[in-house]
Formats: sequence, structure tokens, C-alpha cells
Amino acid sequence: MYERDLASKDRPTFAVLGVGAVGGLYGGLLAKNGYEVHFLARSDFDHLQSQGLQVDTPLGDFQLRPQVYQEVAHMPQVDCVIVSWKTTANRDLGPLLAHFAPSKPIVLVLQNGLNIEQAAADVVGDASVLGGCCFLCSNKVGPGHIKHLDYGRIAIGAFDRTQEGQINDAMEVVGAALSDARIEILLAPSLAEIRWKKLAWNIPFNGLSVALSADTSAIMNDQAASQLAEELMIEVAASAQACGVTVGREHIDKMLNDTRKMVPYASSMLLDFQAGRPMEIEAILGNPIRAAKASGFTPARIEMLYRQLCFLDSRARR
Amino acid sequence: MYERDLASKDRPTFAVLGVGAVGGLYGGLLAKNGYEVHFLARSDFDHLQSQGLQVDTPLGDFQLRPQVYQEVAHMPQVDCVIVSWKTTANRDLGPLLAHFAPSKPIVLVLQNGLNIEQAAADVVGDASVLGGCCFLCSNKVGPGHIKHLDYGRIAIGAFDRTQEGQINDAMEVVGAALSDARIEILLAPSLAEIRWKKLAWNIPFNGLSVALSADTSAIMNDQAASQLAEELMIEVAASAQACGVTVGREHIDKMLNDTRKMVPYASSMLLDFQAGRPMEIEAILGNPIRAAKASGFTPARIEMLYRQLCFLDSRARR
Repeated sequence: MYERDLASKDRPTFAVLGVGAVGGLYGGLLAKNGYEVHFLARSDFDHLQSQGLQVDTPLGDFQLRPQVYQEVAHMPQVDCVIVSWKTTANRDLGPLLAHFAPSKPIVLVLQNGLNIEQAAADVVGDASVLGGCCFLCSNKVGPGHIKHLDYGRIAIGAFDRTQEGQINDAMEVVGAALSDARIEILLAPSLAEIRWKKLAWNIPFNGLSVALSADTSAIMNDQAASQLAEELMIEVAASAQACGVTVGREHIDKMLNDTRKMVPYASSMLLDFQAGRPMEIEAILGNPIRAAKASGFTPARIEMLYRQLCFLDSRARR
Repeated sequence: MYERDLASKDRPTFAVLGVGAVGGLYGGLLAKNGYEVHFLARSDFDHLQSQGLQVDTPLGDFQLRPQVYQEVAHMPQVDCVIVSWKTTANRDLGPLLAHFAPSKPIVLVLQNGLNIEQAAADVVGDASVLGGCCFLCSNKVGPGHIKHLDYGRIAIGAFDRTQEGQINDAMEVVGAALSDARIEILLAPSLAEIRWKKLAWNIPFNGLSVALSADTSAIMNDQAASQLAEELMIEVAASAQACGVTVGREHIDKMLNDTRKMVPYASSMLLDFQAGRPMEIEAILGNPIRAAKASGFTPARIEMLYRQLCFLDSRARR
């Protein structure tokens, strides 16, 4: 169970790891709305310290002078750590989180993929870990400059499987603070379900966008490619089912229809690939494949896409 | 059954449809060795008529003045028609072959893929149709100029399924002529088996070379891509098995090993794609998929590769 009595404090304090499209927006909104937020920055540290953070958002553009750090060792203890960089940077996550362990914080993992919360749970324990799926169009357009275009909801669930079906205290506390900062929050009774439902989009559209060098509209406007996207979604649903999670046909149809109506959109994985950055292949494809196989189901198409991405990634790296 | 008494003639006469890497080499060897060969040419007609055919081959370079035609209507009746252009040109095959129907010729289909003999069988009847798998390195390097680098064996089988397990008269007659022209010939008791065994290479290596923009050595030297090639081979074998044909594990291992030892090789499908020509997607992937599905097996990986190729092809065509 969650151990701190956060309800006794008016406003929880936050550490935000990563000041990109996700951490810059949500951490910025928390700070703007009066919360104590400490940002760990890497490439943009100097800019953030000298020029501050600029957030353009339909909620109202704002600038602020964040409390920004280059070394986790200098950061204070907080009530909640938000992990908002990409999973490709997770190698260092365990040691970083260990710094915060004395205060037993809630850790909210705002990343794509499946089972990406394990590293955090190893440090602070399953019961203090939350996962969040972000549904937003937001980009970092320059150092310390975030452009939030549309949407923004975070669906939050408990990593602790013994709490499946419940809205626990940690979710209530973090959810209340984020809502107070004008962020749309959904507290979900099953983290696994929101993760798999997001994977049903991320696996086909992140994966195929790289394998086919195509944006969402190029995929949806081609008969063969859109059929392949649908077949991959059905295989994600079958993988989820093997893991005890239902992703219904109506969810698949809704995602296909929504994607068909979207403006042409280059997935984050395609942008990473085109920029020569590492792709979130393991979080978005590798982990779901391993989970499905451990439950006795081999997702052949997803595995094929995974191998193609591994090949493209290692060729890009040479 | 095969109806003409070819044994009564010393030397069968040939029509060769397509003067490319296959038709130019094999037709050229037949002509050079004294056989009456009539070539139907398209793009190279003028060059072949004015400059002749040049064949560079380890068997001994040669030049000849072929009997070349631009219109099938002007061609004489023959004992054997060799179809040696790519399956992507097969749309016109029925009407062309109808010209030769009066003499009830043998039709030898030297193309890649599965069930590509049906158009010929519709005109001359199953019993007169042979399929051949060519194992050769040969390229058309210029108009009327064929460069044969290595290998050259043709495995020939009967299209008529009632003759499964037999070496029929048509095979004997055509095989004897080709052997006499110094071409290595294997008369195979099962056309389906030689077709599926060749597909076990063609499907992964033609398909992946285009999907990954990679030659054979780039595929075999990468762990993920070589594993994918192997998984595709296993799926070809499972598809064959569903159709009653055994492609054994030892055949897969041999092909993987042979490919690993090969010099880097850009598949014909990759060359076609890079040159903006149509690819043999239906013959090499579409037909095997349909055959497997009709037998109750869905080859998920091959189907996924097929859909990717269809997407890439239609994008290239726009």
C-alpha cells in the first residue's frame, strides 16, 4: 500500500525528469499553477536556466523560470516524481530514482509502451508506481520551447496488479494536482488496459510509419497498408487477450476511423528515426511481444515488424 | 496426355518469348547449337535485328543473328514455346500463345512464382505445359547483350498434376534439346516441389530486399533480419505443407548457408523496384498466399510482406 499521508499536505511537490514535449508541458502547467516543480534537464539545461521555459498551448501561452537541475544529486526530495523522457533514456532511471527513495515518492511514468514501470517499481516498490498514457499533440520545437497543439488528456492507472480495479490514494493525489493545473485526467481502474489500448495504435502506426516511411494518411489512404494496420491492431488485441486484457473490436474501429480523419501525422518513432535518434522499439514492440509469448501467444506480424525495426535501427546506427 | 510425336523429329523447333537474361541465354544457346529458334522481342527488337544477340557466358562467349519478330502473328508454328519474360508481362500471354495453338506445342514456362502456368494451360491444355525453375546468375547488361555469370541449371516439371511423380514425354523431348545445347537440366517428378523450394528463397530474399532496401549480405549479416528471413522460410515450408508439398528443414538450412556464403546480391525484385519497373509480387507472394489460404493455412508473415510490397509498389507508381 501507499505509505505517505499526502492528504495532510495542501500541495504535493514534484520532480520532473525530462523537459521535452511531455515533461515541459505538464511540469510547466503544474509550476504555472503554483505547484513546486523541480526539473531535471539534460541538453536544454543552459537554455532553461538562462532563458526559461516557453510553452505555447491552447490553454494560454506562458513563460516561466523553472527550478532546473543538471544533476539529480542537487534535487530536493519530493512527493511525486514524473518520468517524462523517452524509454530509450531509461537505462539510468534506477540510479536516478534511488536519489528520491528516502522520501518514498509516488512515481508517475508518462511513457509509451508496456511494462516500462518495472525499473521504477524496483526502486520505490510496486505500490508507489503509477503509469500514465498521454493523449496529446505536443512537440519540443526548440531548446526550452514546447508547442502544445491539441488534446492533452492523461489516463492514469496503478502499476500494482493487486490494486487492479481500484482507484488508489496515489492516483487520487496526483490526479487532483494535475487536474488543478488544468490537465484533463482519467483515473483508470486497469493500467494494463489503458497501456494495451494505446499500444493498439502505437504498434501499427509507429512501427509501419518507419517500416514504410509513411505518415498516418499515407497508410490509411492505401488499401494494403491500411489493411495491414488493421491486422496488426487485431494482433495487438489478441496479445492483450492472452495477457488477460480485453481490447474490443469497437476500440479498433474507433482508432481506425479517428486515424483516417486525422491530419497527416508523422509518428514520434518516425521523427526519431529520421533524426537519427534511438527508437522506442523495446518499450512499444519488444515488451508486448515478450508478454504475449510468455502467455502462450506468438504475435507473428508484430514480431516481424519488430525485427524489421531492429534491422533499420542497427543499420542507421552504423 | 501429350499429343505430338516429337520423337519422330530430330530437332524440335522453338519460339522464345522475351529476349532478356533468361530467354536470351537459353534461346541463344539453343540457336548456337543448331536449333531453329524464333525470338519474340519487344524493346530490343531493332537492336537485335540490326546488331544481333551478344551472349557472354562461361560456356564460351558468342554472337548470333537471331530470327527475331516484333509481332507474334508473323512467327511460324513451333514444337515448343519458351515463356521467358517476367510474370509482370503475363497479361498478354493467353492471346500470344493462342497463335501457336494449332501446332499443339509444348509450353515451357521459365518464370518465378507459383501457379504461373495456368494462363498457358488454359490455351494448350495442362498436359502440354511444363514449368521450369532457373538457377542462374545472368543479367541483360544492354540491348541484345546478355551477361551470364554463373550457374544455369533448369529444373523442369510437369504442370499436369495427374502426372505428378512421372517424367513425361514432353519433359524428355525439351530436356534432351536443352541438354544438347549444353544447358544443365534436372527433370523433376514434382513441379510443385521445385516451385515451393525456390519460393523458400524467393519469398524472403526478394521480399525483404525491397522492404528493407537491402542486399542478401546486409540481410544475412544482421541478426534480426536473418532471423526474419529464416522465419519466412519456415512459413513458406508450412504453406507448402498445407498444399501437400514437403520442404524439409535441411533445404532451409542449406539455403541459409548458401546465401550467407554468396557474394552480396541484389535480388531481381530489388532491381525492378529501384528501376521503377513492376515487381513480381503476385507470382512470388500473392499466389503462394492464396494457395496456402485455400488449403486452410494463413501465412501471416508472408501476407504482411505482401501488403508492404503492394504499398511500396503503388506509391512508386504514383
